[in-house]
Amino acid sequence: MKKLKVGMIGGGGGFFGKVHHRAISLDATREVVAGALHQDPAMCAKFADEWGVVGYPDYKMMIADWKAGKLELDYVTIVTPNFLHAEQALACLEAGLPVMCEKPLSYSMKEALAIKALAKKRKKVPFALSHTYTGHPMMMLARELIQGGKIGDVRKVETYYNQGWLATLLEKTGQQQAAWRTNPKMSGISGCGGDIGTHALINALWTTGLGLKKVSARLTALPGRALDDDFNVFGQLSNGATLVLTSSQIAIGHKNDCGFRIYGSKGSIEWAQEHSEELHYFDGNTRVTYFQNIPVEGTSEALKTYGRIPCGHHEDFLEALANLHTSLERKIRVIKGEKNVAPSYNHPGVDEGVLGMKFLVAAVASSKKKGAWVSL
Amino acid sequence: MKKLKVGMIGGGGGFFGKVHHRAISLDATREVVAGALHQDPAMCAKFADEWGVVGYPDYKMMIADWKAGKLELDYVTIVTPNFLHAEQALACLEAGLPVMCEKPLSYSMKEALAIKALAKKRKKVPFALSHTYTGHPMMMLARELIQGGKIGDVRKVETYYNQGWLATLLEKTGQQQAAWRTNPKMSGISGCGGDIGTHALINALWTTGLGLKKVSARLTALPGRALDDDFNVFGQLSNGATLVLTSSQIAIGHKNDCGFRIYGSKGSIEWAQEHSEELHYFDGNTRVTYFQNIPVEGTSEALKTYGRIPCGHHEDFLEALANLHTSLERKIRVIKGEKNVAPSYNHPGVDEGVLGMKFLVAAVASSKKKGAWVSL
Amino acid sequence: MKKLKVGMIGGGGGFFGKVHHRAISLDATREVVAGALHQDPAMCAKFADEWGVVGYPDYKMMIADWKAGKLELDYVTIVTPNFLHAEQALACLEAGLPVMCEKPLSYSMKEALAIKALAKKRKKVPFALSHTYTGHPMMMLARELIQGGKIGDVRKVETYYNQGWLATLLEKTGQQQAAWRTNPKMSGISGCGGDIGTHALINALWTTGLGLKKVSARLTALPGRALDDDFNVFGQLSNGATLVLTSSQIAIGHKNDCGFRIYGSKGSIEWAQEHSEELHYFDGNTRVTYFQNIPVEGTSEALKTYGRIPCGHHEDFLEALANLHTSLERKIRVIKGEKNVAPSYNHPGVDEGVLGMKFLVAAVASSKKKGAWVSL
Amino acid sequence: MKKLKVGMIGGGGGFFGKVHHRAISLDATREVVAGALHQDPAMCAKFADEWGVVGYPDYKMMIADWKAGKLELDYVTIVTPNFLHAEQALACLEAGLPVMCEKPLSYSMKEALAIKALAKKRKKVPFALSHTYTGHPMMMLARELIQGGKIGDVRKVETYYNQGWLATLLEKTGQQQAAWRTNPKMSGISGCGGDIGTHALINALWTTGLGLKKVSARLTALPGRALDDDFNVFGQLSNGATLVLTSSQIAIGHKNDCGFRIYGSKGSIEWAQEHSEELHYFDGNTRVTYFQNIPVEGTSEALKTYGRIPCGHHEDFLEALANLHTSLERKIRVIKGEKNVAPSYNHPGVDEGVLGMKFLVAAVASSKKKGAWVSL
Repeated sequence: MKKLKVGMIGGGGGFFGKVHHRAISLDATREVVAGALHQDPAMCAKFADEWGVVGYPDYKMMIADWKAGKLELDYVTIVTPNFLHAEQALACLEAGLPVMCEKPLSYSMKEALAIKALAKKRKKVPFALSHTYTGHPMMMLARELIQGGKIGDVRKVETYYNQGWLATLLEKTGQQQAAWRTNPKMSGISGCGGDIGTHALINALWTTGLGLKKVSARLTALPGRALDDDFNVFGQLSNGATLVLTSSQIAIGHKNDCGFRIYGSKGSIEWAQEHSEELHYFDGNTRVTYFQNIPVEGTSEALKTYGRIPCGHHEDFLEALANLHTSLERKIRVIKGEKNVAPSYNHPGVDEGVLGMKFLVAAVASSKKKGAWVSL
Repeated sequence: MKKLKVGMIGGGGGFFGKVHHRAISLDATREVVAGALHQDPAMCAKFADEWGVVGYPDYKMMIADWKAGKLELDYVTIVTPNFLHAEQALACLEAGLPVMCEKPLSYSMKEALAIKALAKKRKKVPFALSHTYTGHPMMMLARELIQGGKIGDVRKVETYYNQGWLATLLEKTGQQQAAWRTNPKMSGISGCGGDIGTHALINALWTTGLGLKKVSARLTALPGRALDDDFNVFGQLSNGATLVLTSSQIAIGHKNDCGFRIYGSKGSIEWAQEHSEELHYFDGNTRVTYFQNIPVEGTSEALKTYGRIPCGHHEDFLEALANLHTSLERKIRVIKGEKNVAPSYNHPGVDEGVLGMKFLVAAVASSKKKGAWVSL
Repeated sequence: MKKLKVGMIGGGGGFFGKVHHRAISLDATREVVAGALHQDPAMCAKFADEWGVVGYPDYKMMIADWKAGKLELDYVTIVTPNFLHAEQALACLEAGLPVMCEKPLSYSMKEALAIKALAKKRKKVPFALSHTYTGHPMMMLARELIQGGKIGDVRKVETYYNQGWLATLLEKTGQQQAAWRTNPKMSGISGCGGDIGTHALINALWTTGLGLKKVSARLTALPGRALDDDFNVFGQLSNGATLVLTSSQIAIGHKNDCGFRIYGSKGSIEWAQEHSEELHYFDGNTRVTYFQNIPVEGTSEALKTYGRIPCGHHEDFLEALANLHTSLERKIRVIKGEKNVAPSYNHPGVDEGVLGMKFLVAAVASSKKKGAWVSL
Repeated sequence: MKKLKVGMIGGGGGFFGKVHHRAISLDATREVVAGALHQDPAMCAKFADEWGVVGYPDYKMMIADWKAGKLELDYVTIVTPNFLHAEQALACLEAGLPVMCEKPLSYSMKEALAIKALAKKRKKVPFALSHTYTGHPMMMLARELIQGGKIGDVRKVETYYNQGWLATLLEKTGQQQAAWRTNPKMSGISGCGGDIGTHALINALWTTGLGLKKVSARLTALPGRALDDDFNVFGQLSNGATLVLTSSQIAIGHKNDCGFRIYGSKGSIEWAQEHSEELHYFDGNTRVTYFQNIPVEGTSEALKTYGRIPCGHHEDFLEALANLHTSLERKIRVIKGEKNVAPSYNHPGVDEGVLGMKFLVAAVASSKKKGAWVSL
């Protein structure tokens, strides 16, 4: 089987480019071959050499080479700061190159809608959004159980994402990750909400299959910081159920603590990223814990194909991200006409991207209006 | 040492009367000797026989016998439904009998203020409110660490209390506990909030020493239920910090799941009732877990006297409740002039009771005003 | 209901006398009324005053007063160091006084057999041995599940009990608990094995209903200590299954860490004292966690009567010990001819006491013979 | 940076070949380019096509092509059943090809010593043994802490590895993994011990730096099975400390449950594979939990280079195995004369392989002699 060829836009400076590089490489069915890794030509050359790929200081040159048949590419991964996503995503879609885009989808609502409009036109050009946690098989199982009726009607959803790395004004020290994430010009209207609150939201909505009608939010920031670093939202879901979303980047002690508790009329489902290979189901009397790769009755054929190693040998963050690439890969292979491609899972894309942006706009507005409910 | 003599008002029907009976008896320094256990004389006689105490169908007769010197009593424990607390508490205070009162303090705000007014006049008549969880030594330690500056300035408090026993309309089946708790005439203006939300609030405020300025709330109830069974509140604490309080009685799978996460500028403290003998402190790099009865530097002399068995032999709910009785007992023994009484801990009383009532009034008002912020 | 009257032998000096005092008092159906709390008359008087009971410097005087009708007693609790158990237990049995005896049953095998012989003759005088952990309802449930066939044939039992308090030569500092436990003249042939290894053994055998055929042991002690402080045994159970018993008093960090993992042909059952209200059952695919007070299909009527508070409000060590007193209390009330006494659970007694002594003798012999298998 | 080229011997049939393939690919600094994936030419061609590598039905042909300059290779990974390791490892060493060999090192002691002899001669040909768990950064940190004196003298080591997948006679159903592992002709003298007991041993010895003097073992197997499926060993370590090693493949409910508890004179260290990113240190009063990628004082420069993603984004089994390949890669790059190669960690090799074999021989002998102590 021939490996898919991947181009990367961004990734030379931040840590997440290498994370995607590894997630792409892990299965040995995909490889990064080219990258607009940095805007500075010297830096780009340095990173390209380190990564062992062809470097382009400008992503447009990479697309141009591909169009000219000088470079083989099957899809592109975008890992730039938020304010750059839209231009790059639109250029790829326009050119006909499938995309794995980092979240949030864009800097502004207007941009998000532009991407959605183009993506809907380019139906043969798959567009994926890297909501990594949805790639965890146990979150995929949660989705199948809940949407299959296991816990009855969803009544309340608690979803959370807590970190502590911005408990001091780290951005004042020159730390690059902190600098762009707390800068409205690069991140957009929300800091914590955009960076991790949207993960908490999409984890919950993608799993339950529910929409979001309106929100009441409380956002705060440390003195001296322009964007929220603590982001808490009550919401009403499309079926009337209550959403409680809490996220923070000043929660000292929490490294990357996300998960959810979903309460239904017949039972509950809970998942936490820190023990991502377990899924807990409560029927009121007992707690039943499922483990990855142990088939649960009703598990879809598609889900069964996402495990790599026997139960007990844990797969985790990198494997979850790799699963998103696998879903995209399978769609691309089908479009290319390959036979016997395993079934692809329906991971987040442009719709979830637009939803995330609407959510941020509404939450920021509500917080400014002292918690008044704002519709999406 | 002579045992203190305790009278009980209520307790014959519900489960919590026996819980107080055991908490009072545990240390063999207190004993229940009389009880207005039930309003029905036959039932009262039956319970009095079972408990081995003198029964009174009317609590006023019990107080009268004590005043007449026919009955020895050192204090009274009130375990009736909420709407009866005020009359009984006022009668005890008026008579000069110390009280351990179940929470919430009263049915209405007006009643709460009346109790407070009388309690302030009767300074020599101790009045305790049974916020049981504050009796856990590790919550007491959390209070000492936080108020001693261990985590710096408090920035965010997440406090929660989740149960699942009202996930169906249990009150329609004749179940007595459910019936009075979901009945506005017996419980007051809030169901879940009054029953367990106030615990979550007082746990957080008593531990941090902070007050509450205003709240924005979302309360819901299953169709067919008059009072909230899901109660979620954002708040602003007296130092400006954010409060996130979530409580539910429809959270299937959660039995009695309360606890808090308190984030400060220098570290965090976390406690959960399900593992009540552990307290977690995070400095950002590591998690340090303290265990009951292992002295931590700075632990007060008073706290050290509250442990009964060596570390590892867990004390839990009944022992925590017994600790509240111990605090009351010690105050009474000092007032009686006994020597060498161990130092008494400052557990919740009438002030916390009034605070809890103000909180419920504000939360109910905010929820009716679609989440608008309401000051206490 | 009239409270049972309890006399205590020992308990004034050590910590465990007060633990029994509280476990006896907790349910308000029993009370300690007299005690041979200390051999020194002045100390005895001091403790008797503190406890609020009648003090006897000599336990024989207490028994004599009871026989003379000067003191009302329903049973006696023995909490003296091991070398005193036999004389005291025999005197009580001889006099016709039921006994709750601390474990191990005795100092020597010979004494154990003498107690057993007399107990078998005095069938109307109940004799209980305080293997506290068997009083945990979830261990009682484990016993019912396993003996009811839930996990098929038992194939392997891992049982453990780890503490760290003797990781230094604490006995050289004058600490009383350490001094007698490490002294062969007061403890017998084994230190760690006698103190906690027998708990680990009886927990496993009482739960599974299996006997022990032979053992291969490795016992060690820190230099300067006369009795083992680390005690590890392989065994063959009566059905041929393997026993792995590990216990230690030098396992720094472990406070009182006991539990078991029992593997059968159809599933497994696991319990750990540190989370004593949970019982885990594995069927190979999932883990099912049961919680106290949630009725599991097949739970006996007797077991259902041992819970005090609703699920989620944890009962723990003191309540487990109180349950052993409850079992003894119920037997005594039946013998006294009381009506409507709740069913009594079959907690450990003299048979388990003799078994524990045989086990110690065999393990010590095996360790001396460099691990050779020794039959019981 | 040019990727290292890797050849694989075996791997087409079993699951672990693909695991190594992914661990090799993950970092995008190594790639599998050729493989003797199966002895059947048609199957080998099929797998080679799937993997996208050059296939060789005979590993000797692969080595020959490399020697003839027709194939570029930097090292070889051996993932065949145990009885084939020696011949293949010797051929690679002889040819001068570095090796990553699956454990156990070989089928017999004689073979193990032959490999060691040749490896010692070929000092410039690195030889690594894939004891995967030693690649977990938190086990590497445990090693640094313990060998740096953090817990004082090691007194007792409990190491374990429990699985449940052989709780039935799975090998009778044709399941391939079970078939060869329970077949003495393919596995050697021990089943459970060879497959997972050696992991438990090397985890403990590599971490503590201690040797093993003698063992007393109890091995059992289900009726109808030729090799042990339950393998328990007491041992004496080189400093006199006690080893308790328990491993099982009939422990229903345990998927891949390995870890250790190491007790020293000043503290303890505990690690468990199921939560592999946490390391627990106990000082007697508190438990301190370290997390991956949070620098602990004294962490070596080499260890710091093994983390891929920020703390909280868990790395797990595949990343641990990749770390062993990284250590081998770095040694090879240094030998090739590359500059600025990061420091390489000292992961297990031929010495640990021989130690594992000696351990199995001694344990099997002891079990046959009814637990008599056997020296290594």
